[in-house]
Amino acid sequence: MDRKREDHDLAFLLRYENVAWYEDGAVRILDRRVYPMEERFVVCHTHEEVAQAIADMVTQSAGPYYAAAHGMALAAWECRESADPMTFLRGAAFRLSHARPTTASRMEAITGEALSRASAALSAGQDAAEALREYAVELMERRYRNIARCAGYLAERLPERSVIMTQCFAETVIGMLLRTAAAQGKTVRMICPETRPFLQGARLTASVAVQQGCDVTVITDNMPAAVLSTGAVDLFTSAADVICMDGTIINKIGTLQIALCARHFGVPYYVTGSPDRRRAGVQDVTIEYRDGNAVLEHLGRRAVLPGVKGLYPAFDITPGSLVTGVVTDRGVLLPGELSSYFRPGDGDFPSA
Amino acid sequence: MDRKREDHDLAFLLRYENVAWYEDGAVRILDRRVYPMEERFVVCHTHEEVAQAIADMVTQSAGPYYAAAHGMALAAWECRESADPMTFLRGAAFRLSHARPTTASRMEAITGEALSRASAALSAGQDAAEALREYAVELMERRYRNIARCAGYLAERLPERSVIMTQCFAETVIGMLLRTAAAQGKTVRMICPETRPFLQGARLTASVAVQQGCDVTVITDNMPAAVLSTGAVDLFTSAADVICMDGTIINKIGTLQIALCARHFGVPYYVTGSPDRRRAGVQDVTIEYRDGNAVLEHLGRRAVLPGVKGLYPAFDITPGSLVTGVVTDRGVLLPGELSSYFRPGDGDFPSA
Repeated sequence: MDRKREDHDLAFLLRYENVAWYEDGAVRILDRRVYPMEERFVVCHTHEEVAQAIADMVTQSAGPYYAAAHGMALAAWECRESADPMTFLRGAAFRLSHARPTTASRMEAITGEALSRASAALSAGQDAAEALREYAVELMERRYRNIARCAGYLAERLPERSVIMTQCFAETVIGMLLRTAAAQGKTVRMICPETRPFLQGARLTASVAVQQGCDVTVITDNMPAAVLSTGAVDLFTSAADVICMDGTIINKIGTLQIALCARHFGVPYYVTGSPDRRRAGVQDVTIEYRDGNAVLEHLGRRAVLPGVKGLYPAFDITPGSLVTGVVTDRGVLLPGELSSYFRPGDGDFPSA
Repeated sequence: MDRKREDHDLAFLLRYENVAWYEDGAVRILDRRVYPMEERFVVCHTHEEVAQAIADMVTQSAGPYYAAAHGMALAAWECRESADPMTFLRGAAFRLSHARPTTASRMEAITGEALSRASAALSAGQDAAEALREYAVELMERRYRNIARCAGYLAERLPERSVIMTQCFAETVIGMLLRTAAAQGKTVRMICPETRPFLQGARLTASVAVQQGCDVTVITDNMPAAVLSTGAVDLFTSAADVICMDGTIINKIGTLQIALCARHFGVPYYVTGSPDRRRAGVQDVTIEYRDGNAVLEHLGRRAVLPGVKGLYPAFDITPGSLVTGVVTDRGVLLPGELSSYFRPGDGDFPSA
């Protein structure tokens, strides 16, 4: 662990230099597909390998954004002797931002900013790779500050002793929520659906929670309705891969049915994140379908006879009518009032 | 494979002599916990071992009923030299029928009938084990005939080309439904949620379907709402562990949330089985909570850090208001009209 990494050491299990990190011609990405059973890193020596790692779901949640930013630094290193580095970098920006289709617009905002920074650095005769590495770290730090604000607003919604249900892995917002709630003297217990097929709920969210001393219970993805029906859950929360301007939430498959059941049993549903001004509604989003074989396997072991097919929509679509509030870094908004998030002069992703 | 087994050979993957079968001082039970990855049998030499196998979920769906009946034959063999065999058999009946709490009343009906048959055989100086083996086979055959009737009524509800969603493993009703539909010239495609933690949907239901040449797609348990929202599914169907007289359905965990989502998206939900006259409503049912460690494991591999808990309610409770129809061997009934199932002179389980 060298000095640069220690500089950014946070008190979290998944420290952000472990999510994705560019250094000396390589991007190192924590392989969340096998965590916490194994702590293994995928080391990418080209931006193409970074894009493939994103497509292969080596990292998820906010991980792909960080990986893309560090991947741009790596791309700048790759073309350091090129006569036309900006053409190379534009190609890299497209490849990285389109590694997965559903989140492409927010990715483009990041790779687009990276292109501006690279252009400025090159014009000034500076090291573009170093400039982009600094941008990637800046992006992470800005995002962490914003997530801390979201966590603060969400913590205000919790009673003194609360039980929350999560879905998939809300990157660091859950960790920060638990820390903020503890600072306010609140006790939080967590119910985490496991989130098949990749088990982000069981492997990542529950890990963050238990490492912070939280009482955390994992359930299978067929149990949320039964648990919600008991009245034991105070609040359901998830992040979102896309929050459309009309309040539609695109998030990990399974969000829709928990949101439906939460509404049925009177449990509020709060989404964390910020709206995407490039997506008016679901018509502007491409839902990614992944290899159905992932559904037929369990930590690598196959459970079906030959001939059985698998279907794997990575995300589902939850209408804004099922959302109680969108918890942004600028406060909690109603799903029908998301335009109030933006201020004059804002870009499409003012907090990204 | 000896002659007795061949006599009962059906054209199904899970032939009923493989579900549970008493012969020569042992009950042989197909271990559905590892099927279809492995074809392995648990061989029980005492009725206590049969009860333990039921508690351990070696067999599920209708399997425990057959195992209990064959277990009574084994108990009669165990006490063949006893001076007071009926006391021994009454103990065995209690142990077998209470191996799992939720289905105890229907189990008691079976073990109670077994006690009557044993008493009659002993009074007549006949072999009680052989009499109970005959009863067990009779029970299976009667149940198969009734399931065939259910399958016929359910098949009538299907359009010419249909897509059905299942939940867990409806023993042979799905196999018979596919056969009946094929005989009527209907094409059925199936969507099977995998049914964690034991994966009965992926391992058992999908196996029965693919072995019959059916187009079958497995999804994870967080996908039903997304699939139902597309309008592609014509009908959702499940069996039930208990159908209360007021229409409440006790079935595999996950049924409630699929039923809720099916109702939301306008997809009819048909339950197969018959009402339990001993259970007026949910207040008369004990929901079994199993070892939460099963939730934390995937085909034997653990996916969470130490300290994370698991919760495993084996069943959930679906109100009759979410049920379109109860498909019995005596026709399709509305959930609010289940008393019409019974005829004068019927016992509590006339079709069991």
